[in-house]
This record gives sequence, structure tokens and C-alpha cells, in this order.
Amino acid sequence: MMTPLTQIIAQIDPVDSAWMLRAKERLDSLTKPPGSLGRLEELAATYVAIRQDPLPPLENKRVVVFAADHGVVAEGVSAYPQEVTHQMVYNFLRGGAGINVLARHVGATVEVVDIGVNYDFGEEPGLVSRKVAFGSRNMAREPALTREMALEALLVGAERAQAAIDEGVDALAAGDMGIGNTTPAAAQAAASARRPGSAGPRRGPGIADAVWSHKVAVINRALLLHKPDPNDPLGALAAVGGLEIAGIVGLILGAAAGRRPLLLDGFIATAGALVAVRLAPAAAGYLIAAHRSVEPGHQTMLEALGLKPLFNLQMRLGEGTGAVLGLSLLEAGYRIYTEMATFAEAGVAEKPR
Amino acid sequence: MMTPLTQIIAQIDPVDSAWMLRAKERLDSLTKPPGSLGRLEELAATYVAIRQDPLPPLENKRVVVFAADHGVVAEGVSAYPQEVTHQMVYNFLRGGAGINVLARHVGATVEVVDIGVNYDFGEEPGLVSRKVAFGSRNMAREPALTREMALEALLVGAERAQAAIDEGVDALAAGDMGIGNTTPAAAQAAASARRPGSAGPRRGPGIADAVWSHKVAVINRALLLHKPDPNDPLGALAAVGGLEIAGIVGLILGAAAGRRPLLLDGFIATAGALVAVRLAPAAAGYLIAAHRSVEPGHQTMLEALGLKPLFNLQMRLGEGTGAVLGLSLLEAGYRIYTEMATFAEAGVAEKPR
Repeated sequence: MMTPLTQIIAQIDPVDSAWMLRAKERLDSLTKPPGSLGRLEELAATYVAIRQDPLPPLENKRVVVFAADHGVVAEGVSAYPQEVTHQMVYNFLRGGAGINVLARHVGATVEVVDIGVNYDFGEEPGLVSRKVAFGSRNMAREPALTREMALEALLVGAERAQAAIDEGVDALAAGDMGIGNTTPAAAQAAASARRPGSAGPRRGPGIADAVWSHKVAVINRALLLHKPDPNDPLGALAAVGGLEIAGIVGLILGAAAGRRPLLLDGFIATAGALVAVRLAPAAAGYLIAAHRSVEPGHQTMLEALGLKPLFNLQMRLGEGTGAVLGLSLLEAGYRIYTEMATFAEAGVAEKPR
Repeated sequence: MMTPLTQIIAQIDPVDSAWMLRAKERLDSLTKPPGSLGRLEELAATYVAIRQDPLPPLENKRVVVFAADHGVVAEGVSAYPQEVTHQMVYNFLRGGAGINVLARHVGATVEVVDIGVNYDFGEEPGLVSRKVAFGSRNMAREPALTREMALEALLVGAERAQAAIDEGVDALAAGDMGIGNTTPAAAQAAASARRPGSAGPRRGPGIADAVWSHKVAVINRALLLHKPDPNDPLGALAAVGGLEIAGIVGLILGAAAGRRPLLLDGFIATAGALVAVRLAPAAAGYLIAAHRSVEPGHQTMLEALGLKPLFNLQMRLGEGTGAVLGLSLLEAGYRIYTEMATFAEAGVAEKPR
């Protein structure tokens, strides 16, 4: 019998480039020089190909923000106290955070998922309660998660993707909240970047250096302790953890299985994408990198995924703030595809004389 | 007695950086690490400083698209026939062009100004008729415009800025339509880049090369013929012309005089900005470069203006399409400033422990 994860992965088909060519034909019939809207046209073609439909709707957009805490903050890797995670969850629910503002601006809804915050919210209206644990454990001393917890968090993410699709969501974005989560994200990226069969733990190219200087020792200690196997992405996910990262992995797989584009945010979401693509290489075609974060190492992760970010506004907030701005560009590109007049309709001369 | 142009220029005050600092104080009280929204925060502070108001409205956004024809198309510098200019004006009026789609997407209105199209539109509802001439003359053989025509077109642009402000517009964007207009824009950029007192016409740094290879001869011939004086921006504007470029110069000056931000589009609009800033250096503070166009030379022009584009989506359509996407980012940044909760309001711990 297939596990739910195996079932989800089995549903992910590679994005068919024939649909992109078909979309490009229409784009080239519109009243503009061919290709002159650059990456907006690319986004439109990608959307059509993902949906496998010449004229899919693109009305409902949602960012799913996974919140969790991290035992590794005991190592002093964060400048902010852990309480900020749950305080920010309340801020999300009241609509006062950066992600709320930018989601309103682009017309996206915000779903907040408690997947592992170290705080008892009780019954909190608006909060999707899927707590796997009251935070991960300290990866520098023990596995951050058990394999079962990592899988459970991943399936929560996939379930939220499916729920969104069932509710008519056309495009998804991934967001995160978790004090200290750049450390597990960096460890995850390093684990993913390990060459299969290479001896011992090592940091991936571009990871560490400047930004991680004060976290490198902790990350390396964790990698030495757990020796994550690059051929076992779920095991690596468990070892260095991050319940919100696991949730994002599942959201990506669920979006791809359901043929919806997934806008990546910055460093944390992209670490999740590395795991998702290890589990299901075809999921890469459903990913759109919104922005390049200020965090060093992000660019290297994007390159490993073969993704080119849409913009670089020197952002580093997380929460999905970059991703929702990317949703707006996706919509802009797709509206070009659906709303612009063709040369024939507008009576504009098409051919160079 | 002051001329209208002198009066407009006299109204342009430098943007006061004290207002930016004041805005930054509020931005740093919001529930995010200071500066973590990067250029969105910069945009918010710039807007507050331009408006000289701690909480100005930002509701109405407008792109003004100036359309004109160019006698220099007789030299074979464009692959498209001149008729496309007026055909595209009709496309704008019917809402079918790229600029219409993207303006709708960002909630901006589109104003179309016939400032010099070589076509008689008669009475056309929705078209702002300010035709200075039925196109410019062939700059390779004679001055593209008389000095009076250049001034008239410039004042049309300033008038449209003032009209927008009178109608409650908070932020403006500049757009263009004119078959063949990269040639006058490049010539204008070259003329602006000339060092005062340098002998004879020469191309500015970065202008020409790859993209202009087939137009360089025409541009150089025009520059040799007219020897535009870099200390006489209006004279240079007349010599190599472009009525829509002159309109954009005026729109920029009018926006700055009325304390409104002006989102620049690509190559054509930026050529206009070079002239505007020569006429009124303080106008530079009111300019926001939306995107970096694919056109080589654009980056050099932006650097000459001290502007850093917000994004690069490989666009090269013109019409103001990049500028309106920039309007949306300006609004995103300003909504962060106005709508996000402060640490105190949200009960989120502010200080690192």
C-alpha cells in the first residue's frame, strides 16, 4: 500500500512545455512586439502550462503562513526572544503584520497555520491548528524532529494545499514565521547540497560565510551529529528540522500534485523547496521564485533549483511578503495573456514592412 | 516677466531628507526587523518626503501616455510602419493595449494625449487632443522641432500633470507611444551626456553599441548637423525632438512642481528625465525608476540620473507598462507605512534580549 506521501508524489507530473509553446502563440498575436513584456509573458505561459488549460481562471490567491518554534534558539542563534513567534501569530490574525498588508494589496488571502508554535493558543478563531509539537528540539544536541513528526508536518502542508484547491484557490504562496528559523533553513540547505556519497557533513557552496558566521558552528555541530543522508530527504528534514519548513515542503508537493503554481518567498521557503524537489524532482516546474532575499546563500539555493527570482527589493522579512508580490506579477502576466487585444482585433499592423 | 517654464521650475523644491528620517522613525516602530522590507520602506519614506506630509493620501494613480510621430522614420530606423502609432492610440482608447491591462491591474487610470501623431483623430472621446504638430521632422536633415514647438509640447506635459493633481491624482507615471522613438530618445540621451564645452557631437557613454548599431549613423548625422548645446536643454530637445519626449519632460517638471512622485518607464521616459533634470536639477528627487529596460543604454541613463530601478523583468514595450508596475510597488511600500501595526499596538517584543 502506498503511503500518503508516495501517493502525492505519484500525482506530480512534469510541466508540459507543449502548453508553454501554445501559450506563446497567443502571446505573440497580441498588440506588442513579440516577447516585449519579458518575464510577464513567461509567467503567463508557465501558468497555462501548469494548469494544462488554454484559459484557466486566476482569481483566488492565497498565502499559507506556517508558524513554528525551534529548540535551537537555546544555542543563542536569534536576536529575538522565542515569544515573538506566537506574538506575531496574533499579529497575523489581527491583520497587522507585513504579510497581511501586502496580501491585501495584491488581493490574496492569508491562512495562518500553527504547525509547531511553543505556545498554547487554545481555540483561536482564524487560526488553523495543526500543531505537530510545541516546537522542534535543539538540533545541535538531538534530532530536531522524529521522522514521524517530519512526515506529519509535511502532510499538514499538503493538506493545506489540497484544502486551498478545494476552496477554489488558483495560485499559492508559501510563508513562514519562526524565531530562529534561518538556522534550520541553512542546515537544511547544507544537507541538501551535500553530494551523494561525499564523506562527512559539509556546508553547501555559498551557504555560510558572511551571514552565517555566528551560526556556522551550531549548524556544523548538528550536521556532524546527524550526518544527514542526501539520499534520504525526509531523514535530513527530521534531523535539522523546522516544522514550518516541513509544512512548506508539503505545501509545495500538494500544489504541484494539484497543478497550482507555488510562489516561493525567501530563504526559509527556498530551503523547503530544496527538500521538496529532492522528494519529487518534477515539483520544480511548479515553483516560481518571487524575489532574491538579502540573505546570502539564497541565490545559491535558487540556482540549485534552476530558478531565477523575479525581483530583488532588498527584502528579508519572510512571512511570505516577497511571495505575495510575486503573485501580483503572475497575475499581471496572466492578465496580459487574457485581456490584451490581438493585432487582428485592434486593427494594428502586425508585420514589419 | 517669468515665462511659464521658468515659473514651473521655480516651484520645484529639493525633496527634504528630514521628512525621510521622520518616516523612517515610524517604519522602525512597525512589527518587523528595521529595514527588513528593503526598498519598499525606501519608497514609503520617499513618498512622505515628496508630499511633505506625515500621512498623505495615496489613492489615485495615473499614467499619462503621450503619443507622437517622428519624421526620422524616413531614414528606415523602425521595423514598424508609422500608422501603428495612431492604430495603437485607438487600441489605448479601447482598453486593449498592454498599458491598459497593467494599469487596470494596479488600479491606475490611463490618460492618452495626442501630442503629435501624424493622423487626424477628429473629435475622439477619451483622447486628450493637444497636437503640437503632425509629427516631428526628420532630425537627420533638419531640426526635429522648432524651439517654440518643443516648449509648447513641454508645457502640454506640465499642464497634464497639473490637471491630474487638480483631479486628485497622488502619483503619476509617464508613458509613450511613437513608432521610431528610440532613435530620438537615444539622440537625446547622447546630447544630454555631452560634457559641456566638449568639441563636436559625440555619443554619451554606453549609448550606441549593440542596440543602436543600425541607428548610430542616423543619430550621429543629426548630432553633427545640429551640434546641440548641452547647456541649452530646450535647444537640444528641439533639435533631435520627439514631441512625446518633450511632453514627458513637462510631465516630470509639473509633477515635481506639484509635489507628486513620477514613476519613470523605460528608455523613452528616461531620455525625457535627462532633459527635465538638466532644466531643474531638483526634479531628480521626485523621480522613481520603475524598471530596467532591456534596451542597452538605459542603465547608463539611469546611472546618470542617480536612479536605481526597482526591478528588471526584461521588458521593452514602453507605453508606461513598467512604470505602472512601479506604481503598485510604491503603493505596497506606502501601505506598509500606513497599515502595519507597531510593536506597541501588537504587543510584540521589540528589543533583542
